[in-house]
Amino acid sequence: MPEILMGVSRAGLKESGSPDILVVLLPYPCVASFLFTDNYFKAGSVIYSEQIAKRSEKVSAFVVNSGNANCGTGREGIEHARMMAERVAQNLDLKIDEVLVFSTGIIGRPLPIDNVLNAIDDACSILEPLDLERASQAISTTDSFPKFDFVKEGNLETFGFAKGAGMIAPSMATMLSFVFTTADLDFEELRTLHREVNEKTFNSITVDGCESTNDSFGLIALGETKASIEEVRKQVFEVSESLAKKIVEDGEGATKVIKVTVKGATLEMKAREIAKTIANSILVKTAVYGRDPNWGRIAAAAGSTEFPIDPFNMRIYIGKHLLYDGKPHPKAEKNAKKYLEEEKEVEIIVDLREGKNSWTYYSSDIGYEYIRINAEYHT
Amino acid sequence: MPEILMGVSRAGLKESGSPDILVVLLPYPCVASFLFTDNYFKAGSVIYSEQIAKRSEKVSAFVVNSGNANCGTGREGIEHARMMAERVAQNLDLKIDEVLVFSTGIIGRPLPIDNVLNAIDDACSILEPLDLERASQAISTTDSFPKFDFVKEGNLETFGFAKGAGMIAPSMATMLSFVFTTADLDFEELRTLHREVNEKTFNSITVDGCESTNDSFGLIALGETKASIEEVRKQVFEVSESLAKKIVEDGEGATKVIKVTVKGATLEMKAREIAKTIANSILVKTAVYGRDPNWGRIAAAAGSTEFPIDPFNMRIYIGKHLLYDGKPHPKAEKNAKKYLEEEKEVEIIVDLREGKNSWTYYSSDIGYEYIRINAEYHT
Repeated sequence: MPEILMGVSRAGLKESGSPDILVVLLPYPCVASFLFTDNYFKAGSVIYSEQIAKRSEKVSAFVVNSGNANCGTGREGIEHARMMAERVAQNLDLKIDEVLVFSTGIIGRPLPIDNVLNAIDDACSILEPLDLERASQAISTTDSFPKFDFVKEGNLETFGFAKGAGMIAPSMATMLSFVFTTADLDFEELRTLHREVNEKTFNSITVDGCESTNDSFGLIALGETKASIEEVRKQVFEVSESLAKKIVEDGEGATKVIKVTVKGATLEMKAREIAKTIANSILVKTAVYGRDPNWGRIAAAAGSTEFPIDPFNMRIYIGKHLLYDGKPHPKAEKNAKKYLEEEKEVEIIVDLREGKNSWTYYSSDIGYEYIRINAEYHT
Repeated sequence: MPEILMGVSRAGLKESGSPDILVVLLPYPCVASFLFTDNYFKAGSVIYSEQIAKRSEKVSAFVVNSGNANCGTGREGIEHARMMAERVAQNLDLKIDEVLVFSTGIIGRPLPIDNVLNAIDDACSILEPLDLERASQAISTTDSFPKFDFVKEGNLETFGFAKGAGMIAPSMATMLSFVFTTADLDFEELRTLHREVNEKTFNSITVDGCESTNDSFGLIALGETKASIEEVRKQVFEVSESLAKKIVEDGEGATKVIKVTVKGATLEMKAREIAKTIANSILVKTAVYGRDPNWGRIAAAAGSTEFPIDPFNMRIYIGKHLLYDGKPHPKAEKNAKKYLEEEKEVEIIVDLREGKNSWTYYSSDIGYEYIRINAEYHT
């Protein structure tokens, strides 16, 4: 595997004083695809990096600061991102448009740019081989554990690291994920694969239904291994899904991962929209927190999208327990409750029984701890 | 004012044993418009009444049961609603298609129909003049106070009563509202007015963003008073807005009413969509609960719809305190926090500064009590 280097340092952006600057240096310019948040209130770092990524298909390095989102910081925020890229390029003898910049943390506070630039100098002076766990820690904010994964089959390897614990943690904006594959793909192949995987992984998770200003997901092809697109897709999907599920598992105050599957739909987008609505329903989330097999809330959420459903034909399961199939099955509720009490990951299945398409969303429950984290955190 | 009669009785649908059946008898068949939930998982009572309302422009009576939503109860639920209408018609010597049926309460439990029909007999045998407060109490579920209002100018009177305390309270489905005006309008005039008022009142409130299976809003014209459509609109809007705000004020566990106004938009639908997204954001709601002037969450919600916003041109206020106008104003945060601590109704204003359209949404904050109500309630 070609060596990827990283440097970690401190700019003093986190109250905890832990590392908050990560520089990652690739062994050579690599084909890379980046996807950014759809939010129109984008961070300065996102506005900057999106522009750079649009005109360059290759990247040589990137820098991440955690503890400050560089968002809502006006045009100065974009200039700060550019200065960060420039400083990395100077230190590592790269072109500025081979360097991307990511930020995550509190919204609306100007970056203390001198400290950040000095910390970038520090990070670039102590490069060492990429350590996924330490890289994840360096970009974390409210995360309670580092998020990384690695798969290998033959010569093909895919690995990545991420951060995130709420679509927006207490003003902490929010999910960053970087996945590397040793595969040799051109930009168009990589881009297509990237979009497809993103829809089914990071775009199919929710903690609180709130879209962040800073979300970014990078997929980088190191170009070392010949492999079929199917082999690459399998690995990239596996690592991305693993990272996405870790974010949900670390959802603020969460006690359960909720897997919501809608199947038997005429259209994939219908299955997806209904799964998303159930996954985002605070009433479903609080029911799971209370270990309550409250299928009425699932039914009401399923019926509330723009897509018609047939209440007399659909079925609702919690785990393998059938609770509704046009009429209620009250006797199944006791076992469904036991299932909610015992399992760490619980599944909700809505079968529309009208077609062949399905979609799965991952969500987390919401309890007192979510309120504590989000109400008692003060800007 | 022509006399409207009501009868209240008990079918034993509420654990508290308080009244759960309300029969309202109009003095003669009146022009009436009814709007029902868009949810596809509709209650049997909604399916039944929607059919009747479609083919009849006049109504003579309606019956409401509280404590059981008659929802998710299969085709039997529709038949139960029909039987309720039939029993009212028999008792009061009406045609069955002059009678509408509404239900609110727990989802997925068959109505104990014999008890309900007996209670309808009781209610019809003890008719007395309509008392708005007692009518509201009879249709309440998790409501902590009755909701009614009355306005009069010259001979024109408008009054109404409602229930609701969460778009879906613990499986309690959900908002019912009945507004009467003495005005003389034909069906088309009434319908147009009804839709218009509904969009700006009951369709512009949110407690938890969850759409109910039972929501119904009736507007009944008693045909006694000649008045201009503007005079009628003013009164109907005033009463409807008052009832809608009472529902938000009674939002489960709410400590504050949040008025979200988006102005300066190019399109009314854009202002509305952005206001709705801010009003539904659990991060904004928990911030208000924590008395935290966290404008970054407002900005992130405002930017997350399909409608582009210009982050460098927009302004964000909490009350009269300007917190963001392309750059942050950290000094204003102290006064904004004081405002959030002191006021019972707090206003969030987002000025897009690009056009002339605006929309206002009413919301409530979310705290520990919401979680307690919704997680610790068990089916």
